[in-house]
Amino acid sequence: MPKISEFQAILRKKKIDVFLSLNLGYGNFISDMLYFAGYPGIGAIIIPQNKKPFLVVPEGELSSAKKRSLKVYTSSKKKRLFETIKDIAKKQKIKLKRIGINKSEFTLSTKDVLIKKIGKCRLIDLQKELYRLREQKTQEEINTIKKGCKISDEILKKCFSQFKQFKAESEVLAFLEYETKKRGCEISFPTIVASGIHSSEVHYTTDDSKLKKGFCLIDFGIRYKNYCTDTSRTIYLGNPSETEVNIYNKLLDVQKKAIAIIKPNMKCSKVYKHVKDNLGEHAKFFTHGLGHGVGIMIHELPSFFEDSKNKIKENSVFTIEPGIYLKNYGIRIEDSVLLTMGKVEILTKISKELKIIS
Amino acid sequence: MPKISEFQAILRKKKIDVFLSLNLGYGNFISDMLYFAGYPGIGAIIIPQNKKPFLVVPEGELSSAKKRSLKVYTSSKKKRLFETIKDIAKKQKIKLKRIGINKSEFTLSTKDVLIKKIGKCRLIDLQKELYRLREQKTQEEINTIKKGCKISDEILKKCFSQFKQFKAESEVLAFLEYETKKRGCEISFPTIVASGIHSSEVHYTTDDSKLKKGFCLIDFGIRYKNYCTDTSRTIYLGNPSETEVNIYNKLLDVQKKAIAIIKPNMKCSKVYKHVKDNLGEHAKFFTHGLGHGVGIMIHELPSFFEDSKNKIKENSVFTIEPGIYLKNYGIRIEDSVLLTMGKVEILTKISKELKIIS
Repeated sequence: MPKISEFQAILRKKKIDVFLSLNLGYGNFISDMLYFAGYPGIGAIIIPQNKKPFLVVPEGELSSAKKRSLKVYTSSKKKRLFETIKDIAKKQKIKLKRIGINKSEFTLSTKDVLIKKIGKCRLIDLQKELYRLREQKTQEEINTIKKGCKISDEILKKCFSQFKQFKAESEVLAFLEYETKKRGCEISFPTIVASGIHSSEVHYTTDDSKLKKGFCLIDFGIRYKNYCTDTSRTIYLGNPSETEVNIYNKLLDVQKKAIAIIKPNMKCSKVYKHVKDNLGEHAKFFTHGLGHGVGIMIHELPSFFEDSKNKIKENSVFTIEPGIYLKNYGIRIEDSVLLTMGKVEILTKISKELKIIS
Repeated sequence: MPKISEFQAILRKKKIDVFLSLNLGYGNFISDMLYFAGYPGIGAIIIPQNKKPFLVVPEGELSSAKKRSLKVYTSSKKKRLFETIKDIAKKQKIKLKRIGINKSEFTLSTKDVLIKKIGKCRLIDLQKELYRLREQKTQEEINTIKKGCKISDEILKKCFSQFKQFKAESEVLAFLEYETKKRGCEISFPTIVASGIHSSEVHYTTDDSKLKKGFCLIDFGIRYKNYCTDTSRTIYLGNPSETEVNIYNKLLDVQKKAIAIIKPNMKCSKVYKHVKDNLGEHAKFFTHGLGHGVGIMIHELPSFFEDSKNKIKENSVFTIEPGIYLKNYGIRIEDSVLLTMGKVEILTKISKELKIIS
């Protein structure tokens, strides 16, 4: 459990009795539960300010929850989730008056149920504190993300080496996700395979369209032991023109230089501006953020927007992903990068030289 | 857009100016936006009580949103989402005083932003109305789900015919999901492949464990054109004992009989009780709900719990999935079923006879 004592110190400072994170729906994604408990199922994690955190899950989830490293209690049909939490809290003399939550993962329905079941209490939002806590990774988290990036590299490499077999975008996507699942991993976001004119859309949704000649943008990430990776590569199907090769190499140069200038405590907006400046006449075709932190969630701190106030901290993992989107095609080159001991390390090591499949 | 006029009639009856559904996070699942607009991306759908519904999406999502059948406006960095909504509302003389929302898909953060940007307004929860609206499917929705079930059947059939090639549970899962993605579909929930003792867990999370001899429970569903399917089959790896064959056939008989008794307006609890009675000495090993509606979400109305108040309505699609979970193995047999013109039709047609792979 990463940083639990740091988090409990925050709870004490803010006089919060417990932090409560809930997953009430099958298939929901609750990052706090995953972060603190490594548990993706239905149930609740309760983190008291001074006592050991614990999970409460329905009986059917017990065997899955028991694989985690913290104490698990079960709720049942007779004694449902909130009743069980109340009971345990009473026994352990944990107050439920000031409850810390993450507002961005807490629905209005959940709030209604909570107040109905727990009674009068004050909800205090800890979203900012949680996201700041997660920004700087522990050595164990770094090792996990590194391993994830290595697996993701292998999968992309295998995909590119067999690329000629694919006829449709959905076949490339299916291959990438198959190789991911086969290794017992998940995908960290919906894979994008955007060929030809589709690559000019920043957030294209891949369907069973035939692969078109021209640039083919692939944005792919896996979730390994709950931690995300994120890589984009743009390859070329057919024979690129000189202009196309030049624009690709320009973007690649910009991306490499952006990574090279990164130093601890540098403002994210400075890296963003550096990229815009270097893109020159193409700057206006770069229409999204330059990057984002990566961890339990695919989008974490810091944010590399033009007006971002974030600074790049030691032991943070983030993407650097400039792109150029023209009328007929788009190119994006993205790495997941670690800043540690004052130096940047690129974690996604698959080649960035323009791969031509003709 | 299914049932939009019925929904607008509800808005008028409740004196709600507009219904608002938002997706602010990349990768979130907002069922209302998918239901009314078929749009899975970032943005908002606004349904006024008398005027045409419209989407507001960030510029980068425009090409994806434009594929839908309703008017799309874009927000930009200069004029963000809520500002754009306010502007359009003003131009079209749409009031934003009484806003309908779905509390179960609306976070406390979103509420904060909404109130900050829109100003004083009253939020009215329409979750129940929305779920009731979706319960009875239109002919178009039924056709889509039927087609989805047909595709899912094909995939499962292919999987079973090649089952001998699989060594690990994750390979089966990867195969099923690969075949799904290759056809341009999504999975509707995390696939379960639970072999041997793992099948005794109701909600097992598949990992790269080697396939064990004995029963192997597969719970699998696809999302075709946004609509879910849901099937469970339990096969046998190796040579089953007579007891194992008998218990399987007993459950199968119970499942078939449960489907056979279904009639329009029957209480779900009655079907549940019928199953419990027929399971006899095994009733205590059936530890979850008997079924659930299926549609845009994998879990919709009606609910087949013991104490469910729901009735089975014309043109509803739902699962019937009794299970028996013993110490060393579990069996579940599940079909997606349609009730239409007073008759039940099983949509997942893949054989339920015990498949033995020895």
